Amino acid sequence: MKKLGVIGGLGPMATAYFLQLLTQMSDAKSDQEHMEILLHSKPQIPDRTRFILGQSGENPLPQMVEIGVDLKSQGAEAIAIPCVTAHYFQKNLEDAIGIPILNAVEETVLCLKEAGISRAGVLATDGTIESGLFQRAFAGEGISAMLPDRAGQQAVMQIIYQNVKAGQPVDLAAFWRVAEGLFGQGAQAVLLACTELSLVKRDFGLGEGFLDVMEVLARKAVLICGRLKGQYECLLRLREGQCPS
Amino acid sequence: MKKLGVIGGLGPMATAYFLQLLTQMSDAKSDQEHMEILLHSKPQIPDRTRFILGQSGENPLPQMVEIGVDLKSQGAEAIAIPCVTAHYFQKNLEDAIGIPILNAVEETVLCLKEAGISRAGVLATDGTIESGLFQRAFAGEGISAMLPDRAGQQAVMQIIYQNVKAGQPVDLAAFWRVAEGLFGQGAQAVLLACTELSLVKRDFGLGEGFLDVMEVLARKAVLICGRLKGQYECLLRLREGQCPS
Repeated sequence: MKKLGVIGGLGPMATAYFLQLLTQMSDAKSDQEHMEILLHSKPQIPDRTRFILGQSGENPLPQMVEIGVDLKSQGAEAIAIPCVTAHYFQKNLEDAIGIPILNAVEETVLCLKEAGISRAGVLATDGTIESGLFQRAFAGEGISAMLPDRAGQQAVMQIIYQNVKAGQPVDLAAFWRVAEGLFGQGAQAVLLACTELSLVKRDFGLGEGFLDVMEVLARKAVLICGRLKGQYECLLRLREGQCPS
Repeated sequence: MKKLGVIGGLGPMATAYFLQLLTQMSDAKSDQEHMEILLHSKPQIPDRTRFILGQSGENPLPQMVEIGVDLKSQGAEAIAIPCVTAHYFQKNLEDAIGIPILNAVEETVLCLKEAGISRAGVLATDGTIESGLFQRAFAGEGISAMLPDRAGQQAVMQIIYQNVKAGQPVDLAAFWRVAEGLFGQGAQAVLLACTELSLVKRDFGLGEGFLDVMEVLARKAVLICGRLKGQYECLLRLREGQCPS
């Protein structure tokens, strides 16, 4: 059983929920059968989206590298980062730290391909969208990324920053307007591609058609470091009438 | 803002919920305003109750000390252990590690005294009950510890080990039989004095009259390392007709 390192705090509630997912996905009948985790939660790491968009000169990479190197020196054999936007730095982090950084984006592509999805909506931060993280990962895999329009993307950012990260109530009506817009345009699945949106699923369910990228990341971590409960083999239940292409 | 160290995994789901409590109790409008946390979750640490009762020679103390010393060397200025039974070792840990180990038991006494409680039910592991952790802390403070009878205590252990720690459904009927038994005998408040029972409150609410010892611990950690949201100043709402003595 490997030790998992976690670079956390981006944001802090998503990190707590990530640990919850790791635990509930683990096939264990006692404390002792669960995986070992080393977590450094440092919410003070500069905002990823602001740096990617050039709105801030504060680069989050050096602090993430420093934490990752420490986690490795404490015995972590792989690292998970429960923040999708931070995956912009995944390759740099892996090079600098020298142990595998689980790649939630690549794992999500595998998951979509297994489900036969060719059109996936992407709900994510401006940093994730503008940097083309998912668009690039989809290219050559036969999957089209369907993005919210400008107003829809603003609504998603509002939910992430002014609702979830700020500890305020979620504007569910706005969430559904954007998500249903993507389904209406033919998305067979909609990605919750920001860990703050995973919290919307935690708190409100959301039903079928959504794939939670943090669940994908947690499952990968459990597969590497522990033993997966059978019920988590499939993370994406399609809506009725949404046949894989 | 201080850095909090957490000795976790005892059990792992309680640890995830502890991080959730720290986050939701923090008065913060962005990631960056939240506290920094260093967590080592090691569920493989030997069972506390089994050692305390002499059912196992495996002492959990050395591994907890080792983790605590590491957390301190990484910059932790105080340590929280989201496991009530582990508080049996609190003084030994503090002596060996050399930074404050937050004391959930003492904090709970303060909380009960503030609320004017003189009769408190204690739902906890056999290790916590047999070692007299709460009974000793109540002595001289004018608080009587009200304990479940033998069958009730067995039911509590069943819920902790065979339900929550095993990832199985909680026998809520059994929980209520024991809790209402204590209220019926005059308990003004009933302590959820095992972090697995905090998860019962997380999942089922439970209503008034209960004081969750893990909430008490989380609040103390936020007071030391962050900024507390006003709504968490009072953690114990009494049942109607249960006037403080």
